[in-house]
Amino acid sequence: MTKTVRIAVDAMGGDFGPQVMVPGAALALERGLDAFFILYGDEARMRPHLDAAPALAAASQTRHTDVFVRMDDKPAQALRAGRRNSSMWLAIEAVKKGEADVALSAGNTGALMAMAKTCLRTLPGVDRPALAAMWPTLRGKSIVLDVGASIGADGRHLVNLAIMGAGMARAVFDAPRPTVGLLNIGSEEMKGVDEVRAASKLLRAAPPPDFDYIGFVEGDQIGRGAADVVVTEGFAGNIALKTAEGTASQMGQYLREALGGDLLSKIAYLLARRGLATLKAKMDPRNVNGGVFLGLEGAVIKSHGRSDAVGTANAVEIAYRVAHHQLLGQIRAALADAHKDAPAGEPARPQLRMDSKV
Amino acid sequence: MTKTVRIAVDAMGGDFGPQVMVPGAALALERGLDAFFILYGDEARMRPHLDAAPALAAASQTRHTDVFVRMDDKPAQALRAGRRNSSMWLAIEAVKKGEADVALSAGNTGALMAMAKTCLRTLPGVDRPALAAMWPTLRGKSIVLDVGASIGADGRHLVNLAIMGAGMARAVFDAPRPTVGLLNIGSEEMKGVDEVRAASKLLRAAPPPDFDYIGFVEGDQIGRGAADVVVTEGFAGNIALKTAEGTASQMGQYLREALGGDLLSKIAYLLARRGLATLKAKMDPRNVNGGVFLGLEGAVIKSHGRSDAVGTANAVEIAYRVAHHQLLGQIRAALADAHKDAPAGEPARPQLRMDSKV
Repeated sequence: MTKTVRIAVDAMGGDFGPQVMVPGAALALERGLDAFFILYGDEARMRPHLDAAPALAAASQTRHTDVFVRMDDKPAQALRAGRRNSSMWLAIEAVKKGEADVALSAGNTGALMAMAKTCLRTLPGVDRPALAAMWPTLRGKSIVLDVGASIGADGRHLVNLAIMGAGMARAVFDAPRPTVGLLNIGSEEMKGVDEVRAASKLLRAAPPPDFDYIGFVEGDQIGRGAADVVVTEGFAGNIALKTAEGTASQMGQYLREALGGDLLSKIAYLLARRGLATLKAKMDPRNVNGGVFLGLEGAVIKSHGRSDAVGTANAVEIAYRVAHHQLLGQIRAALADAHKDAPAGEPARPQLRMDSKV
Repeated sequence: MTKTVRIAVDAMGGDFGPQVMVPGAALALERGLDAFFILYGDEARMRPHLDAAPALAAASQTRHTDVFVRMDDKPAQALRAGRRNSSMWLAIEAVKKGEADVALSAGNTGALMAMAKTCLRTLPGVDRPALAAMWPTLRGKSIVLDVGASIGADGRHLVNLAIMGAGMARAVFDAPRPTVGLLNIGSEEMKGVDEVRAASKLLRAAPPPDFDYIGFVEGDQIGRGAADVVVTEGFAGNIALKTAEGTASQMGQYLREALGGDLLSKIAYLLARRGLATLKAKMDPRNVNGGVFLGLEGAVIKSHGRSDAVGTANAVEIAYRVAHHQLLGQIRAALADAHKDAPAGEPARPQLRMDSKV
């Protein structure tokens, strides 16, 4: 027996606001998700999209606010102006109050993280939240974290990321025992940065009960699907993610040029359209939409700011799975288990630098 | 009037040794480079390839040794076993002794860097050498450094990388005034790591005379050709490079699947072969072969270990350009100029952490 998942949606976030957030939720419902939506935002702007989606109208309620976080608001600015009454804050707060199981926003990442952290607080043993991204691979999808929620990580924090990423893989991929690798610049144990080697030692010394640590993974192995979960510090992770996105778009550009030239190329394009459609689907960033903030006392999902309804529906599905599989409870238990040997009075939370060191 | 460039080649390095290093040099000569080669390695194994390339035989000499650094030797091991008499060491030493203008090896990167540093020493003001890579972009090529020669960099070291990378761009691209960006995870000045912001401040405070600092560049902008030179610390740089390589190869795999399916796709492939050949050329890693070690008292070029003769010829061409444009002298002058205000007795060399911190 499943329980309806309650999803709080910041309907005003992203470049398109209600015109993709509402249809995105409707599309996810059509796919058969057992979900109920609470939609935060400008009632008048949401209404036409709800009228066009009766199934969603029946499985949702709206909560009006006319305070919105803008895409270019700095985190501190967003907190000052939008704390307590913006659509973003209200969606997160619904999770805190237990009115929703998970919050979804396409609003700006910095503001969303700041609000989520302020409103929900971090889990015991976790100093800073992380952002986990879906990554398309030759074998399907992997999870890479942290892709930029914070900068710098010691060995213990990297272990926490591994634990949280593995929990997410179980929820999102239905993988009972995911594989986890540490992103590094060499496969030998001697290589790489101190923090990564320290994390590797910790994971080898106390093998985690519910995932397999497979060692170091290099940048070119992420796309091969070498591990279900690839763990890295936020600066390198963000650079890896953006570089992969940039390279994929560069290749797409080359391909368009290659097949858009003379008449023969155009005929070729028509002939190969089935294969090329598959290619396009594989390269479609909408299929990996839905970043997950991990390490918070509540589930918050980030949809891409430029996402359309299809991408939004995919993020809704991630939100659904995260809540449905009770990711938060799983992670809390796994973290407690991992840190149970830490002596009392000496919290297991990592000794993190609070300044922004690489 | 140009001067013949003398290139010392470690003919035994890489996965294929003389069978690509010698034909690679021959191919570069055929392209019209005014170069003379000193080939270090096993005379008996080089000879057949030289016999097949009379022009190269006339523009080269061989120096026999039967000590070679293996691809899996650790740097310390390579130094112990191959110092003074390995083909890799001898090629580098030829530069030190002034017998050659530049050294080229496809041998293992760690060993090559250790030997180059031990044999040649670093330039005044430079603590550790960097490895600069060519990066294919939508606008042509860019240079990215450091891609993994060392880990961690403070602001001053990043400025040195900018100076050295700009020098290389002038030599390799014939760009009199290249643009230089700092790799970061946001475009706002407030974002990113302390070291990167510090470097940005230094570059803004004292605008360099011979390149344009354009600010922060994100991972997805490298492939767009946002800057001629993209500067980053070695851990993030190596991850960016490998991730881009992995993504390109992943896209190539998707494309092969897309065009290798049914008969129609195969016909399409034939029809579009001209465009696809261009695509393939653009994605061909051989076209960006030739990494440059910067910051040493001598020029050392790294060819990819799996490179064939065409890739090797491209690395030879980089070696030629680096020597022909007297990159080393340019960099020495630029570094001295940049650090001329540093008080005497307080060396301008960066205060670098000697441990491997991110």
